[in-house]
Amino acid sequence: MLRLLIEPLVWAALLEDLGRAGDITTDATVPEDATVEAVVAARQPGVLAGLDAALLAFELLDPGLKFERLAGDGERIERGQRVALIAGRARPVLAAERTALNLLCRLSGVATATRSLADAIAGYKAKIVCTRKTTPGLRALEKEAVRLGGGANHRFGVDDAMLIKDNHVALAGGVGPALERARAHAGHLVKIELEVDTLDQLAEALAHKVDAVLLDNMDPETLRRAVAMVDGRAVTEASGRITRETAPAIAAAGVDLISSGWITHSAPILDLGLDIA
Amino acid sequence: MLRLLIEPLVWAALLEDLGRAGDITTDATVPEDATVEAVVAARQPGVLAGLDAALLAFELLDPGLKFERLAGDGERIERGQRVALIAGRARPVLAAERTALNLLCRLSGVATATRSLADAIAGYKAKIVCTRKTTPGLRALEKEAVRLGGGANHRFGVDDAMLIKDNHVALAGGVGPALERARAHAGHLVKIELEVDTLDQLAEALAHKVDAVLLDNMDPETLRRAVAMVDGRAVTEASGRITRETAPAIAAAGVDLISSGWITHSAPILDLGLDIA
Amino acid sequence: MLRLLIEPLVWAALLEDLGRAGDITTDATVPEDATVEAVVAARQPGVLAGLDAALLAFELLDPGLKFERLAGDGERIERGQRVALIAGRARPVLAAERTALNLLCRLSGVATATRSLADAIAGYKAKIVCTRKTTPGLRALEKEAVRLGGGANHRFGVDDAMLIKDNHVALAGGVGPALERARAHAGHLVKIELEVDTLDQLAEALAHKVDAVLLDNMDPETLRRAVAMVDGRAVTEASGRITRETAPAIAAAGVDLISSGWITHSAPILDLGLDIA
Amino acid sequence: MLRLLIEPLVWAALLEDLGRAGDITTDATVPEDATVEAVVAARQPGVLAGLDAALLAFELLDPGLKFERLAGDGERIERGQRVALIAGRARPVLAAERTALNLLCRLSGVATATRSLADAIAGYKAKIVCTRKTTPGLRALEKEAVRLGGGANHRFGVDDAMLIKDNHVALAGGVGPALERARAHAGHLVKIELEVDTLDQLAEALAHKVDAVLLDNMDPETLRRAVAMVDGRAVTEASGRITRETAPAIAAAGVDLISSGWITHSAPILDLGLDIA
Amino acid sequence: MLRLLIEPLVWAALLEDLGRAGDITTDATVPEDATVEAVVAARQPGVLAGLDAALLAFELLDPGLKFERLAGDGERIERGQRVALIAGRARPVLAAERTALNLLCRLSGVATATRSLADAIAGYKAKIVCTRKTTPGLRALEKEAVRLGGGANHRFGVDDAMLIKDNHVALAGGVGPALERARAHAGHLVKIELEVDTLDQLAEALAHKVDAVLLDNMDPETLRRAVAMVDGRAVTEASGRITRETAPAIAAAGVDLISSGWITHSAPILDLGLDIA
Amino acid sequence: MLRLLIEPLVWAALLEDLGRAGDITTDATVPEDATVEAVVAARQPGVLAGLDAALLAFELLDPGLKFERLAGDGERIERGQRVALIAGRARPVLAAERTALNLLCRLSGVATATRSLADAIAGYKAKIVCTRKTTPGLRALEKEAVRLGGGANHRFGVDDAMLIKDNHVALAGGVGPALERARAHAGHLVKIELEVDTLDQLAEALAHKVDAVLLDNMDPETLRRAVAMVDGRAVTEASGRITRETAPAIAAAGVDLISSGWITHSAPILDLGLDIA
Repeated sequence: MLRLLIEPLVWAALLEDLGRAGDITTDATVPEDATVEAVVAARQPGVLAGLDAALLAFELLDPGLKFERLAGDGERIERGQRVALIAGRARPVLAAERTALNLLCRLSGVATATRSLADAIAGYKAKIVCTRKTTPGLRALEKEAVRLGGGANHRFGVDDAMLIKDNHVALAGGVGPALERARAHAGHLVKIELEVDTLDQLAEALAHKVDAVLLDNMDPETLRRAVAMVDGRAVTEASGRITRETAPAIAAAGVDLISSGWITHSAPILDLGLDIA
Repeated sequence: MLRLLIEPLVWAALLEDLGRAGDITTDATVPEDATVEAVVAARQPGVLAGLDAALLAFELLDPGLKFERLAGDGERIERGQRVALIAGRARPVLAAERTALNLLCRLSGVATATRSLADAIAGYKAKIVCTRKTTPGLRALEKEAVRLGGGANHRFGVDDAMLIKDNHVALAGGVGPALERARAHAGHLVKIELEVDTLDQLAEALAHKVDAVLLDNMDPETLRRAVAMVDGRAVTEASGRITRETAPAIAAAGVDLISSGWITHSAPILDLGLDIA
Repeated sequence: MLRLLIEPLVWAALLEDLGRAGDITTDATVPEDATVEAVVAARQPGVLAGLDAALLAFELLDPGLKFERLAGDGERIERGQRVALIAGRARPVLAAERTALNLLCRLSGVATATRSLADAIAGYKAKIVCTRKTTPGLRALEKEAVRLGGGANHRFGVDDAMLIKDNHVALAGGVGPALERARAHAGHLVKIELEVDTLDQLAEALAHKVDAVLLDNMDPETLRRAVAMVDGRAVTEASGRITRETAPAIAAAGVDLISSGWITHSAPILDLGLDIA
Repeated sequence: MLRLLIEPLVWAALLEDLGRAGDITTDATVPEDATVEAVVAARQPGVLAGLDAALLAFELLDPGLKFERLAGDGERIERGQRVALIAGRARPVLAAERTALNLLCRLSGVATATRSLADAIAGYKAKIVCTRKTTPGLRALEKEAVRLGGGANHRFGVDDAMLIKDNHVALAGGVGPALERARAHAGHLVKIELEVDTLDQLAEALAHKVDAVLLDNMDPETLRRAVAMVDGRAVTEASGRITRETAPAIAAAGVDLISSGWITHSAPILDLGLDIA
Repeated sequence: MLRLLIEPLVWAALLEDLGRAGDITTDATVPEDATVEAVVAARQPGVLAGLDAALLAFELLDPGLKFERLAGDGERIERGQRVALIAGRARPVLAAERTALNLLCRLSGVATATRSLADAIAGYKAKIVCTRKTTPGLRALEKEAVRLGGGANHRFGVDDAMLIKDNHVALAGGVGPALERARAHAGHLVKIELEVDTLDQLAEALAHKVDAVLLDNMDPETLRRAVAMVDGRAVTEASGRITRETAPAIAAAGVDLISSGWITHSAPILDLGLDIA
Repeated sequence: MLRLLIEPLVWAALLEDLGRAGDITTDATVPEDATVEAVVAARQPGVLAGLDAALLAFELLDPGLKFERLAGDGERIERGQRVALIAGRARPVLAAERTALNLLCRLSGVATATRSLADAIAGYKAKIVCTRKTTPGLRALEKEAVRLGGGANHRFGVDDAMLIKDNHVALAGGVGPALERARAHAGHLVKIELEVDTLDQLAEALAHKVDAVLLDNMDPETLRRAVAMVDGRAVTEASGRITRETAPAIAAAGVDLISSGWITHSAPILDLGLDIA
């Protein structure tokens, strides 16, 4: 991702940790001219993401630091694998460490969680997609981590595509009116997806044309029938508490996409650490 | 927490979701004068946190909305329990929903995770404390959620207390020099904690006086001996991949504090949703 | 548009005019307790847009001012028509006047220009659409003004849809590879449009499937043939120095959309003024 | 202009276009290691302005790009003339193109419009001056473009000089009281200008001393009499819907300044484009 | 001053003091529902300034607080005099106290220092003026405090008037070239002042016309001769380590203005405090 | 201090002075290609502080300037001593001069004032400490200046330690309840200090344990008794209108710390200037 897009976020993260006085422990205990060689290494296997953001945290504190990347974002890494080297003044390395790791571990956690779901449905045409259930402030980075983990992206916000949910349908007066109003309002480069809970709703949606349908909380058999009904006229997305265990049956039902909030809102971090040689 | 401290964050979270054009689905499908009564309810049991931030998301989009709180932050809530009512114009309610829930579910997840660890060691004097392994941008809110879940707070940043870690010790030339340098630099209201990996290091730390010791990755028996060595001369904190299963034995070793990064970096969200009557 | 989305812009516009010292002429010459009744009125006929932003400029300087709207955004207004009344303390009214009018006149100018093009092709199915040739900082407001003037919106930025231009095609190695790469990268809610300069390129695009085609600088006859070739398989957009004079023939060629940069980058303002009773 | 003063504006303009996800078309279709040589060239004759801001847009996305300037701000350029070369990675060049051109074309449009008015009154002592009818957010850049087009600057905001308008006069209780209040309030480096609509008002203004008079909407003959009345005791400025056609007669009346809102609020852009070799 | 101009500053000052966690002492020791009646009172005599900013600090933390003003900015106040009452929730009052007083005491200090110099030259036509030697971030408020203390304002920044200093003269090639270049560049509402160290320089300046002359570090007798040379053709300003003791003789020399950096850069605060009934 | 922490402040200070148009005097009178060698020198003896911030002001305007430091922050400097050389383009040097000196003179003033108090109590164990009575926006820099002047730092804000004052005690219901509530709320790295006005309060505080006591406005004899009562069980801090004259007797009473608001809220600047060779 463009540095311009992540620099404000990394800057703010550093300031959140440094507060008014900066790293008083490091300033007190580490000589100003001390230098280090530091290694960023994985403590557990997973998929790497966020290395740009993490290294930027160090660089923003000291543009004189030297970096060497030993692994790339999106790469599967092993426990103990070294992903980057940092060399230079000790103080900024220690002062930025926690901020850098907080970004790196969280984003790698998202990539790793996505990879685990994607691997679970390997062989099927379905792809894992994310949701808007992301961490406030980190959406673009988490969406990128999803792609790095083998997933695809859903909307980035409420402004770049239409997803008509049950409440919209209710307030618009039904699936038909909702789709008509949406189409009349949407620019020609805006796609429209509709959430349906039943096959009846699906039939109504297809009658009014729609780019994609979100098949919410349907069991595999219902999904299979839904896919058959759609018959290629819309992209099909299944959602609803997807896990590694449930994903294969859903993929087998023939849907195009399986969306998961878990990969962004509840993925555990991937543990990476900083070791000083 | 003071509204002044959370308003910029909630504002930014809304803008991240609204983008340039705002909620185009809602604008298209929901009549401008439609009103709703909405209920925020728990989909699973846990501890509530972040309700202020969540309701602020709605209020920032429409100061005319009416709110009723049915539960308070820090309260244990049941599956299905209603925690707040929102009444007013439909469009801002729908436009703010995801941002509000992203904050509420994440913070309640932190509180719930903390509560689960705290409950696991109920009866012991030890308290669960957090770390700086928090979500970039959300530190103050997550630290508050930890308190709401029955935990206590560690440092808020690198500027408000000293925590001398292994790298500091190495670069300072040993535990003694590190502690001397720290004390010479610290203001009179700054406490000093030292991370020790062995009982030898602990002995050296105690010889130089220290406010607290972080006993990293020690087994319960070693912890017990450490606590005995300290004998009330410093606060004792145990750390290292704490789980509900391992926590009781650690607490039984007599430490004052058990710190957990997991409660902020990897706690799953608590699922809450918005239902429109 | 949501107040949250325009308030930062209006705030910044006020500060740009007020500088460090504020309105020193008004502070010097107008008694602090003087009150006024002011009328915002059109000096020429056109289409109103930006009234929310304009009134917000006054309100941000003095929340105690009273407003009455006499016309709505998107409404055709006559020369001399009063569009809003403002009553209250004189100083903030005078201090905000220029900022408010700068926003109102510019946005009404965009709406009026759009309306003039839209009227020129009334009766045809084609709609006028805008481009990204907008004023830096005002994109969302100008896009709204386009809608208020009877136009439709193109992309809001480079992130919400794909528009593959000649340079992309060249760097991707041709229309086919460009479209394949685009489709492989795009999320399921991202539409893809391709710019074509010739019918040969159009044929190639249609062979690879595309959501929309931008037919650049084609004469009406070529456009007619293009529309026939497309035959409903993609949205057709004509572009290239559209004027009121050239638009009807282009619309008659059967395209779905006619895009104009002029309506945002070069539309003259609509003259509105503030009169104090 | 100092880079410090324009960098925040260019940064914001880029973010407005890049949104959360950046240039997804370019990321999808252009290989990461592709390089280009690009030429910024004029599509029509005019006066160049804003080249610094435009090139900064590219540089902010990629500091590694190389720039060569072939023309300078304020220079008259011909149709087809190349004004700058850009060489380096293709992706940032394409991602910044629209933002850069939006700034360059608008500012060159302002300079060109100013030049056209200034040329129309060449030979007279009068100078073209701008107003505060500028684009919100772009005032300083547009004021610079006015200078580059051969014009001079009026106030930059309401805080750096006093311009007493009809409403101030009315609320102060007359021309005399307004000028007395203004003088009592103004610092010694603040000039005072007064707007007059009639020669009677002008006489009153001169009786109270004033640095400049704004002669609003007077015909050439009245202006001539006004200039004679002033007789060098104040700077004379004529205003009111100035065009290339009306300007010479106004200049011939002997005024010092002719102010035009049109050069900033309604000047069409100067068309410049980016060509990739 | 307009609230819009001071709110960002007060907001930032509060955040600087509140940090990430807010007022932890108050949160711990003061019951959430406790209320107070607080009095802002002077601990020493002086001139009040900054009351708006100070009360805004409280209001930003709790819009529900009630305020009563007992004295106005610019008013001379006695030791012990009460200047404002605040009633409402105790926590926000205590949390904002220090920030509010820091602003109030500093600005009242500036006003009081200005008043002391102004009083020292009462009876002479000379006025005390400030300089740009202000506190970074507080310029507009300090300039207002100078006015409240009976002084007048010099430039607010380097952009609103020209002050040609010795270095400019040297780099321009002399007083004459400097003034010619300045006049050619300045807009018609920009005044030009020139710093002169000798009467020869003054003669040269007057020969080229100038709006004001800054007579730097001249003794009273030289100032008297300078004033005579100027003979009303320019505003005369004396500067150079002005004190209450030296000011009268300088004023007696007949200058129009006496500028003092001390009133903003080194004025001691005026001590005001908050008492809780 | 980390550049990241001071750059936003210096940037804002520059913009406050440069306004919209920048340094119009310099732009008019100084040729664009003129270069200078400038010297920052002391006009009076004192202690240097803020050199980083001051040089950053120049560097932000022109990264091409060359700097040579001839003295270090915290160093005692003599009248006339040169502390830094700056070489490069003349315009940015002149444009940044005032902003740079405003920072440098103020911070050196704080360091010098602190040094004067510290020198007054040399030989005693007591150290001078600052308060939160700092300049809004400059707290971290002023706290650093205090250290550079030989003082130590008190709290940086209300969030990093607890200082229980008289109002807290009153609202908590007494010294005992206040301390109990504070301890229950404080994290293990948060120290607690209590303000006491009488020896009775001190006794009560010691009975409830406290990390430090603020002995407010006590005469030396009372302080001596207080120190004896404390007997090493808490850090002792004396406060209340400390001057060079009163400080030695207070230090002689045996307190650990003597706090002074004057060193930050009322210290006169240290005069340093910029000379161009």
